[in-house]
Amino acid sequence: VTRRKPGIRSHCPVSYALDLFGDPWTLLVIRDIALFGKRTYQEFLGSAEGVATNVLADRLERLEAARIVTKRPDPDDRRRTLYLLTERGIDLVPVLFAMIEWSARHDGHTLATPEKLAQIRAGRPALEARLRAELKRATMD
Amino acid sequence: VTRRKPGIRSHCPVSYALDLFGDPWTLLVIRDIALFGKRTYQEFLGSAEGVATNVLADRLERLEAARIVTKRPDPDDRRRTLYLLTERGIDLVPVLFAMIEWSARHDGHTLATPEKLAQIRAGRPALEARLRAELKRATMD
Repeated sequence: VTRRKPGIRSHCPVSYALDLFGDPWTLLVIRDIALFGKRTYQEFLGSAEGVATNVLADRLERLEAARIVTKRPDPDDRRRTLYLLTERGIDLVPVLFAMIEWSARHDGHTLATPEKLAQIRAGRPALEARLRAELKRATMD
Repeated sequence: VTRRKPGIRSHCPVSYALDLFGDPWTLLVIRDIALFGKRTYQEFLGSAEGVATNVLADRLERLEAARIVTKRPDPDDRRRTLYLLTERGIDLVPVLFAMIEWSARHDGHTLATPEKLAQIRAGRPALEARLRAELKRATMD
């Protein structure tokens, strides 16, 4: 494979995606931003799965290098950094939803109850619109 | 979290899915079975990404433990083991497709060209039907 980039195993679309977010933590950060409205390192750190600080810092760096998240100083407190999804990141929402649908069907103890699932399905267009509006606003700052 | 199983970080549907296949290799095995029609350890080993033998053996064991793949002796050669997707595994096809769509859009060197993408999209119902038929046939053996 002549055009392979460092760290990319093949340009098979499944493999390429896994090279960027095929680990147990990266998509949780994307979930935190997309679905839970989290924006800061401290907020990500507080998620239920208990990510370690070094793992979180590493994943945020990788996500930024992969242009899936972008960071900005918080306009309300310039010492604080806000992370938001780029267009590439927002386009991962269908991947999150495919995983949610699968777990809702196959995890007997899932938090994605039928009511909750119906609610997030219905909210998906508004969610994607909100993420794009936030990105646009941040880009204009 | 009182009902958390060993190895399950939370029952958030994204986290649950990542606990089972959130690594760089597991979904490649599922891709190999679902999209490339591979069935044997040797065939998986030959994939372009160059999985190591110990990693492949570990992922096959985990996939079997997670009831995503099931194995059968090859009816044509009983010494050989065939791996196929269970219902839980076949239900991962939408996750593969969500990743394929993302990489097709965002990897400048993707193998999922517009023609190839149109072809696999169109073939998806037949693909899922074939996987279910194979599972049914194997279950009746």
